[in-house]
Amino acid sequence: MALIVQKYGGTSVGTIERIHRVADRVAQTQRDGHQVVVVLSAMSGETDRLIKLAHEATPTPDEREMDMLLSTGERVTIALLAMALRGRGINARSFTGRQGGIITDSAHTKARIARVTADRIREALAQGVIPVVAGFQGINEQSDVTTLGRGGSDLSAVALAAALKADRCIIFTDVDGVYTADPNIVPAAKRIDKIAYEEMLEMASLGAKVLQARSVEFAAKFNVPVEVNSSFKEGKGTLVTKEDADMEAVAVAGVTGDRNQAKITIVGVPDKPGIAARIFGPVAQANINVDMIIQNMSQAALTDLSFTVPRADLKQAIPIIQAVAKDIEAKSVSVTEAIAKVSLIGVGMRSHSGVAAKTFEVLSREGINIMMISTSEIKISCVIDEKYLELAMRALHAAFGLDQAQPAASQSGS
Amino acid sequence: MALIVQKYGGTSVGTIERIHRVADRVAQTQRDGHQVVVVLSAMSGETDRLIKLAHEATPTPDEREMDMLLSTGERVTIALLAMALRGRGINARSFTGRQGGIITDSAHTKARIARVTADRIREALAQGVIPVVAGFQGINEQSDVTTLGRGGSDLSAVALAAALKADRCIIFTDVDGVYTADPNIVPAAKRIDKIAYEEMLEMASLGAKVLQARSVEFAAKFNVPVEVNSSFKEGKGTLVTKEDADMEAVAVAGVTGDRNQAKITIVGVPDKPGIAARIFGPVAQANINVDMIIQNMSQAALTDLSFTVPRADLKQAIPIIQAVAKDIEAKSVSVTEAIAKVSLIGVGMRSHSGVAAKTFEVLSREGINIMMISTSEIKISCVIDEKYLELAMRALHAAFGLDQAQPAASQSGS
Repeated sequence: MALIVQKYGGTSVGTIERIHRVADRVAQTQRDGHQVVVVLSAMSGETDRLIKLAHEATPTPDEREMDMLLSTGERVTIALLAMALRGRGINARSFTGRQGGIITDSAHTKARIARVTADRIREALAQGVIPVVAGFQGINEQSDVTTLGRGGSDLSAVALAAALKADRCIIFTDVDGVYTADPNIVPAAKRIDKIAYEEMLEMASLGAKVLQARSVEFAAKFNVPVEVNSSFKEGKGTLVTKEDADMEAVAVAGVTGDRNQAKITIVGVPDKPGIAARIFGPVAQANINVDMIIQNMSQAALTDLSFTVPRADLKQAIPIIQAVAKDIEAKSVSVTEAIAKVSLIGVGMRSHSGVAAKTFEVLSREGINIMMISTSEIKISCVIDEKYLELAMRALHAAFGLDQAQPAASQSGS
Repeated sequence: MALIVQKYGGTSVGTIERIHRVADRVAQTQRDGHQVVVVLSAMSGETDRLIKLAHEATPTPDEREMDMLLSTGERVTIALLAMALRGRGINARSFTGRQGGIITDSAHTKARIARVTADRIREALAQGVIPVVAGFQGINEQSDVTTLGRGGSDLSAVALAAALKADRCIIFTDVDGVYTADPNIVPAAKRIDKIAYEEMLEMASLGAKVLQARSVEFAAKFNVPVEVNSSFKEGKGTLVTKEDADMEAVAVAGVTGDRNQAKITIVGVPDKPGIAARIFGPVAQANINVDMIIQNMSQAALTDLSFTVPRADLKQAIPIIQAVAKDIEAKSVSVTEAIAKVSLIGVGMRSHSGVAAKTFEVLSREGINIMMISTSEIKISCVIDEKYLELAMRALHAAFGLDQAQPAASQSGS
């Protein structure tokens, strides 16, 4: 008998019919001899509906009130699923984030979990009751409702799994796992059976929207085995777990593409100490996340400084950068929106040399110019012209052997 | 400066536009120099939508889960109103039933208020914050959400007003007060300026749907002055308060009509001790509320026994009564659905004699036969043929002087 936390996202509980399907799957897991804790999101569309109402109430809704409002969505689904389970003769009980003992800080709309007591969940399990817990929400020390930010239900599930020392946390979603690349772009992409936390974290933060990055961090910290699987079909998913020897056998686990970046170049920056701080200080103050930064020596005592920002923040960033450029007496500012970032990820890079060299060679062979490069122990990212993104992803996917069925080593995983 | 609890019902907060109108009124009350506590219902239609979902989840939803589900409705409106107020620069904060300190028993879906702590409400008031509290809901000793039954938001408001020793509790609804009769039936009906708790209680339980009966009882018990007023127009409402000399000046305060009754007669009942218990025991066991009971001596040692039951329960009651009749060897059972009950209510009846006699005379003059009569200290009810109900109400309304503007005494009220 294993203790399994199952999390179902908004599309999986988007209608009563789908809630019934979830009830069937939970019932089956119990019949298979397991203990189950269910964590749910709000019905898909509900959070957007509530946000729209809030913005009709006032242009800038108070964040505490936003949490009061948004936390209603999961309360509806947990009650409905508990009813559907009880209608099947299964003893189930719904618990809000508060009742589940999910204690957070007071950063409304993006609270961080401080601790998980889960007393009532343990009590329910001991009584043979299936606890159905509201994801995405918690309570702060003042007894006010908080929410964990978009995708926060994943985090609720992982945190509960950690607190309960569950054998596995399964995130049911609308895809059946994590792929070596986005199948819409790379048709040869394969589902990955097993992936390391670190790899998943890079995949998540680079735009593979399967698992929320914070929940992967949390899972890694508490060593919770997380499985990503489809709520719509039966079959194997992807297991996110700690790094093992199997994974190192493969150099590259996956390829990701990111179009949500823009490049800003400040041309002719006087090369003096403290210049970088004068440039990036105001950008950070405006809460704009700078991703890659590259400094090229151009002429004597003058450098060109390029960096990428999220494309959505570009409009806000440009006047700040122009003011800074004037202030530091740089020559000009140029902006390129049509860029994209292609990345290779794999813990195997630690033991496989030559991944970077091969990447550059593949891109060069395809006639793709590399504008910026950034590397870490388990990742290589190249900024390229946006129009070549699909080509670059497909070429790299093939070159690193991801088009083939995965080697036996990494299939033995889940 | 007065402390005023304002309660707005579902139609008053049914859309964002209406929530903005409520915000304006709350803001005006504060500008007028008063402290305000707001109690809200769910948006009209929301509770029905949720109940429908519940019945799609399972035919017989668990009541604890039902409360989890239904309690979301008020959380939405309190958050939206708090936002709308803050958008006007007014410091407001939403509180759930739990946060408002509304502690109930564990009778889910029809919980009774055990006590109201209201600590956070007092704290908010002391800080100059307008508390916006979810009506209809509370929390039991196990920390589970409970609801107070339909119309329970009135009760929340009155209970909070009692706990806070508020100067007044105003129930804003879609009518501007309590009338001497239903204006749809009696066009000459007048708004009552001031009415005693006891009168209001009789009016409420006899079908004047303005105020929930339990909240009137609660108000009477803790002597909370309750005003019923319109949320859609400015002006005077009806003040429900303790009986005073003004009220006794008038014999009859109002006339009500009730069509939701049916009459059952058991003909030829052997007149023996214990017969009544054998008849009404099984009816009570089936949870059918018997209202009026009349026993007529018909022949030697045989009586006819007539009583009224809610028309909705008639189908269920008939087979029970037929079985009982057979059992006690009565002659037959007859049923009359087309009856109605007309009632006169007024604390003034205590000091005015002859109200009953005048009632019978008026009905007789109109050719209306009285089937059953029941009287209390402040009420006379007559069961008549349903088709005469409007005529009876109008005739009695005129005969007891209610068509005229009210005497000055009772206008001095609110």
